[in-house]
Amino acid sequence: MSELRDVSDWWATGVSRIEPGVIELRGRPVQELIGTTSFASVIWLMLRGQPPTEGQARLLEAALVASVDHGPHAPSIAAARIAATCGVGLNNAVATGVNLLGDSHGGAGQQCVELLGDVVRRQAEGAEPATAAADAVAAWRVRSPYVPGFGHRFHTVDPRQDPLLSLVEVAVADGTVEGAYLRAGRAVEAALNTGRARPIPMNIDGATAIIYAELGFPAPLARGLFVLGRSVGILAHAWEESQQGRRNKGPMPPDILPTYLGPAVTE
Amino acid sequence: MSELRDVSDWWATGVSRIEPGVIELRGRPVQELIGTTSFASVIWLMLRGQPPTEGQARLLEAALVASVDHGPHAPSIAAARIAATCGVGLNNAVATGVNLLGDSHGGAGQQCVELLGDVVRRQAEGAEPATAAADAVAAWRVRSPYVPGFGHRFHTVDPRQDPLLSLVEVAVADGTVEGAYLRAGRAVEAALNTGRARPIPMNIDGATAIIYAELGFPAPLARGLFVLGRSVGILAHAWEESQQGRRNKGPMPPDILPTYLGPAVTE
Amino acid sequence: MSELRDVSDWWATGVSRIEPGVIELRGRPVQELIGTTSFASVIWLMLRGQPPTEGQARLLEAALVASVDHGPHAPSIAAARIAATCGVGLNNAVATGVNLLGDSHGGAGQQCVELLGDVVRRQAEGAEPATAAADAVAAWRVRSPYVPGFGHRFHTVDPRQDPLLSLVEVAVADGTVEGAYLRAGRAVEAALNTGRARPIPMNIDGATAIIYAELGFPAPLARGLFVLGRSVGILAHAWEESQQGRRNKGPMPPDILPTYLGPAVTE
Amino acid sequence: MSELRDVSDWWATGVSRIEPGVIELRGRPVQELIGTTSFASVIWLMLRGQPPTEGQARLLEAALVASVDHGPHAPSIAAARIAATCGVGLNNAVATGVNLLGDSHGGAGQQCVELLGDVVRRQAEGAEPATAAADAVAAWRVRSPYVPGFGHRFHTVDPRQDPLLSLVEVAVADGTVEGAYLRAGRAVEAALNTGRARPIPMNIDGATAIIYAELGFPAPLARGLFVLGRSVGILAHAWEESQQGRRNKGPMPPDILPTYLGPAVTE
Repeated sequence: MSELRDVSDWWATGVSRIEPGVIELRGRPVQELIGTTSFASVIWLMLRGQPPTEGQARLLEAALVASVDHGPHAPSIAAARIAATCGVGLNNAVATGVNLLGDSHGGAGQQCVELLGDVVRRQAEGAEPATAAADAVAAWRVRSPYVPGFGHRFHTVDPRQDPLLSLVEVAVADGTVEGAYLRAGRAVEAALNTGRARPIPMNIDGATAIIYAELGFPAPLARGLFVLGRSVGILAHAWEESQQGRRNKGPMPPDILPTYLGPAVTE
Repeated sequence: MSELRDVSDWWATGVSRIEPGVIELRGRPVQELIGTTSFASVIWLMLRGQPPTEGQARLLEAALVASVDHGPHAPSIAAARIAATCGVGLNNAVATGVNLLGDSHGGAGQQCVELLGDVVRRQAEGAEPATAAADAVAAWRVRSPYVPGFGHRFHTVDPRQDPLLSLVEVAVADGTVEGAYLRAGRAVEAALNTGRARPIPMNIDGATAIIYAELGFPAPLARGLFVLGRSVGILAHAWEESQQGRRNKGPMPPDILPTYLGPAVTE
Repeated sequence: MSELRDVSDWWATGVSRIEPGVIELRGRPVQELIGTTSFASVIWLMLRGQPPTEGQARLLEAALVASVDHGPHAPSIAAARIAATCGVGLNNAVATGVNLLGDSHGGAGQQCVELLGDVVRRQAEGAEPATAAADAVAAWRVRSPYVPGFGHRFHTVDPRQDPLLSLVEVAVADGTVEGAYLRAGRAVEAALNTGRARPIPMNIDGATAIIYAELGFPAPLARGLFVLGRSVGILAHAWEESQQGRRNKGPMPPDILPTYLGPAVTE
Repeated sequence: MSELRDVSDWWATGVSRIEPGVIELRGRPVQELIGTTSFASVIWLMLRGQPPTEGQARLLEAALVASVDHGPHAPSIAAARIAATCGVGLNNAVATGVNLLGDSHGGAGQQCVELLGDVVRRQAEGAEPATAAADAVAAWRVRSPYVPGFGHRFHTVDPRQDPLLSLVEVAVADGTVEGAYLRAGRAVEAALNTGRARPIPMNIDGATAIIYAELGFPAPLARGLFVLGRSVGILAHAWEESQQGRRNKGPMPPDILPTYLGPAVTE
């Protein structure tokens, strides 16, 4: 009996309660959510346990929309398109893409939330904003040469940055969020660009990290939310590819051969 | 030159245009979507190429919300929770869950869209509704003993069915959708339950299949959209599990041993 | 108590027995296998429940060796290399490749075992070999335009075919296998090439399907064994890529842009 | 032209050369390997670029054999079995298991190679063996409370340890390997157990890490090789499960409900 208890406890959860005739999400009957609550608000509810305010939902929705796609150059998109030609289900193709949103591909938002948190913490301990930002960046660079949330191999100005940060400013003005992470992000951007000819702009991971941090999401959920947003683009690309009729698509046309690096073996 | 052309064409896409400083989703600059367009509407845009009407977006949103979770009994949820204890990224845990939404777990909506399409086709060819439904079910059963979208091992009445179908009825009344697939779904339900003591109710896959078919989504995208909805629950569960501190969680507590089926080897 | 029984039974297995201090694989203590049994023989043991004869192990080993790699044009290899640059574990990169060995990429061997089985069955029912092969191919083409195990977009002569079939011939001669599937494979090849100028050669999936069928593996395990063989190449490529220092590698260099297929939106 | 060059170079590899009629693995024609070279030796060739000596192959083979399975309590095995009931391909089920061999599930061997390397390095810099081991363990514990390769929640004596270490001793005696990592492993075991009543034994990850380190594999390949070995058990379990007829298997029988942790919502 106590062991049976253990089995139920082994799978204990506060996310949902599913019993015959009952589906409750974070304590709310699903039938009360259907038709009344936006998909973005349900995402918040499921991750936070409470529904968002209208202003919170608006910010979350903007960050999700900004993340949906970055074309076939993105490894996640390319891999999902390749998968879609291999005779697997559309879910397997999406999973293939999501699986690639690792530390360097989908993890920059998570890392940037950590970096911004470090800036805010240093300020709370009395550092000047500029010093806090410079010190946090220096501390990060001990870990990694890549400062997350800044710089892009592609865009010198990322078209997603301005509308996202404008929405954060509005949310600061109306009291939806406090603004500490927005200020931290701007301070990091200033620290990175002091004395540089070619600027290092904030990128999508930086702008969404500001939003997720302002909204109180723990850092790993910045990656989690990026996964939900990017899944849309992954699905759209996998679906398009599946309609184009290729089988077992490689990364380039079959008549282009990879350069062979290996030595000839002569024994 | 023509071969270089081939490489660009090999990765041709109409989903998005990404160039330095430019991110367009289905021809629309992403900066015009951020802050103006709901996440559910962007899902529609990415999959269909055009934005939805307000009524279409409302139906899609309801179907997505209805699909987000079904607790740790669902293989996708269980596997994602297990993954979250194995020292992989949160994206890998979500991918693990999504990867399991195969033909029998996440594919019932897709199959039900096919089934309802068959009913509608038979009616278009002159069959009476009841006959069309009965014949489509009989034809399906040649393929598989499982009629997709109907029956549940758990719920005798699925709490998600009524609110979803009510929304479809409203959408039929206001002209958002035509209603042929709703009628087909009800006809299949009637055909399945004629003369039965214990009813076979329509389930979530059936109700969402009606919505996706009414909205004009091709059948495979019913699975694709289920993937997007269920990803939310998968993420929420993986995240919760990752906060509970277990390492390498198996399916049951370590002191419960699997029954051994194999013969002892005596040589 | 009976419910606790259920939990143990729910996870019942005859593959292995794991208890404190005990690890038995198919009833054999693992310590008796270590150092005495080849990896290929343990693969056989785990899948079949009994160890192979020496001749069986030799054939299995040859088929595994023949399958390990086909370079970056193979979707599984390409996707694994892409994954290895995304900040995920080496296991996640291998899983990405394996996940793509679907019906059209890794499933041809499985399908070819089914096709050869159909030829053998038709002969057992009295058909002449040539007729059995022609009829089995015709029956297959109703299902799919791709006859599995024959033809290659790349190799007009596959260098793996001759050594594999020679080994089967030796195994037929020494009584290790019966030879019915080898004869069926040759009959299918003849049927496909009757009256053709440009020959359709047997490919690796055909040659290994003959081996797996002769050895008595059920068709789905032809895919399973291909997975084990190809995992080696997937790992070797993912590892090499991880040592080359790229981050978030796309399918082509960043300065080559995908062709944009979508219409400009003008509203 | 130079850009086309770039595409070939983007996919450059020294692992294999695949051209029409040519398949070379590490510079060796595949037809020369088929029938002459064991699967384990080809694994070595693919990862190292040269074939192993007989003694090296024997050690590698033993480590692979020792790793194949640890039953349904292992998350990788459980998840693969769950996947096998969801209507996905056998390759997708194997990929699901492999995907879970992350830092804490399949990464202990890799970490133990690092730890043993640290011990050897400290000795090379002049430390006594016991001090080197104690200091390396202390340094590791700053990173993580889990010392990789030692301790098991299940086995107080792991039956795989003795046969594996005996083989290493033989290989040291005959000059196949040098023995520094074996001595380091024993020193770590001694350091961990000094003054303890309940011993912390070396586990499979420790024993295989010694082998992989002695054979000169870089640490990440200890995980890679574990993936290849464990894939066999993952496949065997997924295949067995797929033959048992369950659909959408959850982690426990449907009549056992997960404990609900969440608060009732009363508004």
